[in-house]
Amino acid sequence: MREIEGGVCAPKGFRAGGIRCGIKASSSKRDLALILADTPCTAAAVFTTNRVKAASVLVSREHLAQGICRAVIANSGNANACTGSEGLAAARRMAALAGRVFAFPAEQVAVASTGVIGVPLPIAAIEGGMDDLAASLTADASGHEAALEAIMTTDTRKKGGALETEIGGAAVRFGGMVKGSGMIHPNMATMLGFITTDAAISRELLDRALRRSVARSFNRLTVDGDTSTNDMVLVMASGAAGNPPIEKEGAGYEAFVEALETLCVKLTRAMARDGEGASRLLTVTVRGAVDEAAAEALAKSVASSSLVKTACFGADANWGRVLCALGYAGVSFDPEKVAVRFASAAGDILVCRKGAPVPFSEEKARKILLEEEIEIRIDLETSSGGLGGPGEAVVWGCDLTYDYVKINGDYRT
Amino acid sequence: MREIEGGVCAPKGFRAGGIRCGIKASSSKRDLALILADTPCTAAAVFTTNRVKAASVLVSREHLAQGICRAVIANSGNANACTGSEGLAAARRMAALAGRVFAFPAEQVAVASTGVIGVPLPIAAIEGGMDDLAASLTADASGHEAALEAIMTTDTRKKGGALETEIGGAAVRFGGMVKGSGMIHPNMATMLGFITTDAAISRELLDRALRRSVARSFNRLTVDGDTSTNDMVLVMASGAAGNPPIEKEGAGYEAFVEALETLCVKLTRAMARDGEGASRLLTVTVRGAVDEAAAEALAKSVASSSLVKTACFGADANWGRVLCALGYAGVSFDPEKVAVRFASAAGDILVCRKGAPVPFSEEKARKILLEEEIEIRIDLETSSGGLGGPGEAVVWGCDLTYDYVKINGDYRT
Repeated sequence: MREIEGGVCAPKGFRAGGIRCGIKASSSKRDLALILADTPCTAAAVFTTNRVKAASVLVSREHLAQGICRAVIANSGNANACTGSEGLAAARRMAALAGRVFAFPAEQVAVASTGVIGVPLPIAAIEGGMDDLAASLTADASGHEAALEAIMTTDTRKKGGALETEIGGAAVRFGGMVKGSGMIHPNMATMLGFITTDAAISRELLDRALRRSVARSFNRLTVDGDTSTNDMVLVMASGAAGNPPIEKEGAGYEAFVEALETLCVKLTRAMARDGEGASRLLTVTVRGAVDEAAAEALAKSVASSSLVKTACFGADANWGRVLCALGYAGVSFDPEKVAVRFASAAGDILVCRKGAPVPFSEEKARKILLEEEIEIRIDLETSSGGLGGPGEAVVWGCDLTYDYVKINGDYRT
Repeated sequence: MREIEGGVCAPKGFRAGGIRCGIKASSSKRDLALILADTPCTAAAVFTTNRVKAASVLVSREHLAQGICRAVIANSGNANACTGSEGLAAARRMAALAGRVFAFPAEQVAVASTGVIGVPLPIAAIEGGMDDLAASLTADASGHEAALEAIMTTDTRKKGGALETEIGGAAVRFGGMVKGSGMIHPNMATMLGFITTDAAISRELLDRALRRSVARSFNRLTVDGDTSTNDMVLVMASGAAGNPPIEKEGAGYEAFVEALETLCVKLTRAMARDGEGASRLLTVTVRGAVDEAAAEALAKSVASSSLVKTACFGADANWGRVLCALGYAGVSFDPEKVAVRFASAAGDILVCRKGAPVPFSEEKARKILLEEEIEIRIDLETSSGGLGGPGEAVVWGCDLTYDYVKINGDYRT
C-alpha cells in the first residue's frame, strides 16, 4: 500500500471540479462541487444520526437506497437544514440539475450541503452555476483540489488523500476528501466525506467495508461534541481497476478494508488537526479495557472533555482531569489500576500509576505537550480476573482554544 | 415562604467558620471551612456518580451511612482525588481532627474537598489550622460568609442563601451554600453544597426530599460537561424549629420539599451565573415533550452544546444550533413541529416555528441576547396523538467564553 497524488481523481473513472456560484455571498471562495463517475458506480453511505436531518441527507439517503451512484453535488455556505418543505424541494432540484447536465436520472445523484442552518438554500445560484460547474471538471488533481475547496467552511486546511494497493493482482486506487472542522462528534459520520475507488466490489461488501472503516476512523473523532445535521460519508466504486470482483469475504475484501480504513484514518486525523480553533491534534489511546467498545467509550470521554482539551491548549500535564473524564464515561474499570502517559515527538512521560501521582518533571511534560501532535496513553493495567482485558481503541480530537470561541461566537455574520 | 439572611447559620442550631490554613500556597484566600451543629442532626447526602471518587466522597459516604451528622469540614485548593491510600488516610484524619476538637466521634463528621486533582493533601496544614478554625465559628451571617469563602476555587461570587417557611405552625428555616464553577455537569450532585435546616424530619423523608430537590435543581445544571470526582450535596436537619416532626408524606413534607427545592434552584442559578468564564446565565425550557425525562434530556442537550454556548456568548440568534442539539439528544420528537423563542428582560422573539425559519429582527434578537440572563424557550408543539405531550423541564447553564479557555488552559500554575 502506498500513498499517491490525485485525491478522488486518483482512481480510474472519476472527474471532479468546483466553482463559486454565489452561495457564500460575502466571500470570493468556491461554494459548489461535483464529483462525477464515468459510469454508474456501486455506492454505500453512512449518514448523521441526528434526528434533525438536513434536506440533503434525506434526499441522498433516498437516492442511494439502490446502491447506485453516478455523481455527488455538494455546496458549502448553506446547510439546507431546518428549511422545511422548501429546503427538501431545493435538495431534489440540486440532484435533478446535475442529472440533467449529464443526462442521467436524478436518483443517481447524491446531494450534500454544509454551512449555516435555518436559511433557505439559494437554489437559483446553483442553477446559474451548473454550466460552469460542468466545465470545471477534470480527471486530474486540479479537479480534486477545486472540489475540495468548494466544500470547505471554517476548515483552514484541505483534507484529502489517495493511496494504491493491490487486490487480486490488480492495482486498485482509493481517493478521498473530507470537510469538517466544527460541529463534529463521533456518532456515525460526523462530517462530509467523499471517497472514490476503482475497485470492483459488490454493494453488500462495499457497505460492510465502509461501516467498519467509519467505525474505526470518523466515528472516533470529536471536535466539540456537536453531531451535525448534515453529515455523510459516501464511497463510490467504479470497478475500473480490473481486479477480480470482491463478492465475498476473504483476502481481497481484507485488502480492500485495510486500504479504505487507512485512508479514513488519515482523513480523520486531518480533521482533528484542523478542528475549529485547534492548535494541537490530540490522540487518546486506551488499552486494557474489557473490550473494544469500552475502550472506545473511555477514550472518547477523555477526548471530549472540555477540561482535558483546555489543559492540552495550555500544555498543562493535568492528568487528574483525564482520570475524571474516564470516571464519567459510563464504563466499568478499576480507578486504582490506571496508568497515564503523555507522549509526542518530544518524548513520553509517565504521570500517573495505579490511579495515583508519580513524581515527574513538569518541564519535560510541558515540552512534550507543546508539540502540535500529542498523545494521551491510558493503560487500565488489568488483565487477570478483574475488569480489565484486551480491549483497546484510539480516538482523535483537538484542544479547545480561544479561537474556537471566536469562530463560533459569531459564525453567521 | 420568604428569603432571609444568614445562610447556613440562619436555621437554629448551627455555627460556621472559615480560615486560611495554607493549602492554597500561592494565595492569601481562606481554604478551610467548618459547619457545626449544636446537636447531632438527621442528615442525607448525594454524591458524584463519577467512578473516580475523591477520598472525601468515600469517607463521607461511609460516615453518613447511619444518617447522622454533626459537622462538615471542607477544604479548597486540593481535591484529594486520585491520591491513593495516602489520600484516603488524609480524609479520615480530617474527620478525626474535627471530631477531636469538639469531642464527638469522627463518624459524625462529613468531609469535602475541592481543588486540583492528583496532588497529595497537605494534612499537616489542616491539623495546624484546627484551633483557629474552631475559634472562627459564629452563629451569625459572618460565620456563613467565612465558611463559604473557604470552599471557593475558581468561583468569582459567593453563592448562598436562606429562607423561612411555615410547617405545622412553626417557622422553619433553611440555609445553604454552594461552590462550583467548572467541572460541572448534571449527574447527581455536581458541586459542593451544604444545606442546613432546623426542621424536624425523619431521615427517610429527608433523603427523599433531598433527592427530589436535587433532581430538579443541581442535576439540571451544566457548565462544561465534566462531572467532578468530588461532588456532594449534604443536608443537615437540627430539629430545633419545633415543628411537628415530619414523619410521613403530607402537607408538612410538601412544604418542606417546596422550600428545599426553592433554595436548591436559587443556588443552582447562582452557580450557572458564575460558571467558569461565563458572561451570561442561560435558562433552557422545553415544553410539550413526551414526559419530564424527555424534556430534561432535550433541554440538557441544548444547554450543553458548545455551539449554542458560544452563540450565546456572541449574542447570535443562531437557532439552527438549538435544533441541531435537540436532534442528538437521543429522544424522540418531531423536528417539523419545533418552535424556538429567545427571551430576556429585553423582550422575547420567535425565531423558528414548525422546525423552519420565521422572519425576525436580528437587531431585536441581539438586544435580547445581550442581557446577562437569557432564556431559550422550546415548544415541541405537539399534544395530540403523536410524540409530544405534557413533559416540561428547565435546565440551567452558561455561555462558553474566552475566559473559560483562559481559566482552564493553565489551572494548576
